[in-house]
Amino acid sequence: MVDPRISVISERLSRISRIMAVSSGKGGVGKSMVATTLALTLANNGCKVGLFDLDFTSPSTHIILNAEKVQPKEEKGIIPPTVHGLKYMSIIYFVGDKPAPLRGSDTSNALIELLAITQWGELDFLVLDMPPGIGDAVLDIVRLIHRIEFLIVTTPSLLAFQTVKKQVSLLSELKMPIVGIIENMKMDKANDVKLETEKLGLKYLGVISFDTQVEAAIGNGAKLLNTAIGKKIKQLVDKEIITSKRAG
Amino acid sequence: MVDPRISVISERLSRISRIMAVSSGKGGVGKSMVATTLALTLANNGCKVGLFDLDFTSPSTHIILNAEKVQPKEEKGIIPPTVHGLKYMSIIYFVGDKPAPLRGSDTSNALIELLAITQWGELDFLVLDMPPGIGDAVLDIVRLIHRIEFLIVTTPSLLAFQTVKKQVSLLSELKMPIVGIIENMKMDKANDVKLETEKLGLKYLGVISFDTQVEAAIGNGAKLLNTAIGKKIKQLVDKEIITSKRAG
Repeated sequence: MVDPRISVISERLSRISRIMAVSSGKGGVGKSMVATTLALTLANNGCKVGLFDLDFTSPSTHIILNAEKVQPKEEKGIIPPTVHGLKYMSIIYFVGDKPAPLRGSDTSNALIELLAITQWGELDFLVLDMPPGIGDAVLDIVRLIHRIEFLIVTTPSLLAFQTVKKQVSLLSELKMPIVGIIENMKMDKANDVKLETEKLGLKYLGVISFDTQVEAAIGNGAKLLNTAIGKKIKQLVDKEIITSKRAG
Repeated sequence: MVDPRISVISERLSRISRIMAVSSGKGGVGKSMVATTLALTLANNGCKVGLFDLDFTSPSTHIILNAEKVQPKEEKGIIPPTVHGLKYMSIIYFVGDKPAPLRGSDTSNALIELLAITQWGELDFLVLDMPPGIGDAVLDIVRLIHRIEFLIVTTPSLLAFQTVKKQVSLLSELKMPIVGIIENMKMDKANDVKLETEKLGLKYLGVISFDTQVEAAIGNGAKLLNTAIGKKIKQLVDKEIITSKRAG
């Protein structure tokens, strides 16, 4: 039997112009920081933006945005609260901050439920904070939401990039568009990630220097926009993202 | 029907004195580096050691050990190759370095298969490089291998520690022993992680300073033992691990 919620999902997302997934092969590369900053920056540019935290392995955007006290409202589905000018939704509202892990099928079920019930309304951008890696949840999201553009975050580490390569190869097989790869927490001048990215035929979106202020900005959106991440993402939004929207 | 391989697993692990799982709530905290260094250090102390990479989300120990060219032998099961004095086995030998992710049940199946076929023989220590987080795979491993002691790796970041808390709470529910928490990639003097660890009633195993030499030591075991990770783990092995073995 086909899950009736699946047909509801396209309807729920129909008034969203662009869906951008911030993704990483490995955890701990700053994916949630980049996703949150991207959403805040787009909103600061006058766009209508939603941020959707689907990283059930370690949901963090509610901590970064200090959104732990807000709650979505129920009204013919779930209406996301507005946090720092963003419509905000997290899997944490659904599964809670409990220690108990979700078994695979429960995770899929929670994702389908969340996608089916959330009322985003009209948005210019919906930014997804994806689960790390290329597991079931990523496949489910790609299958349930078509038209996702991927922005991939890596660090300079060879170990992180090895995993990115696998992810890129999977996304290519699935024919998903990739905006490019951004290198976070850079501490030296090495250009291996740039070269490797170009070898993959992808756009290298540049570096974000390692910045100790990022940790201090957790819970403070305004402060986050003034860190190395904030500055780089502003540049990226101006040069690549809003432009490509107009061009498209 | 009960999977007949499950009863084989205890038999396969019966001649191993201690099984230590190096684990983290989040990826990217240096778990694989710590696991590899721990195994190498125990071997340098004259112990018989195995290292088993079960992190199917981003297996890395074969890169850290430069073990990409070695292969296990088949002989009434699988005999792990010896790498830098360790018996070494990785899920990568089983699933390969392919981009295709394993669906949940395939992951379980691969783990059961690996545990059932690997011939470790007699060991003082088997070090497990665990998958990050508290997903199905971690639950399966805990269920299949009893008597695991957990060593938890975190970074100073609040976001990493939030996830560690959930993991600790799950492991406590499952009544799994936790050796302690080690704080990796430390760059300042803050003692939040120490305080939080003590609040959880766990042993704080100390800090590993952030060390740019770690990345340069990838692929070179001897060099790795001379980094901040190598030095701290040596201390830990001398003070906590080998002692507690004798005490036990």
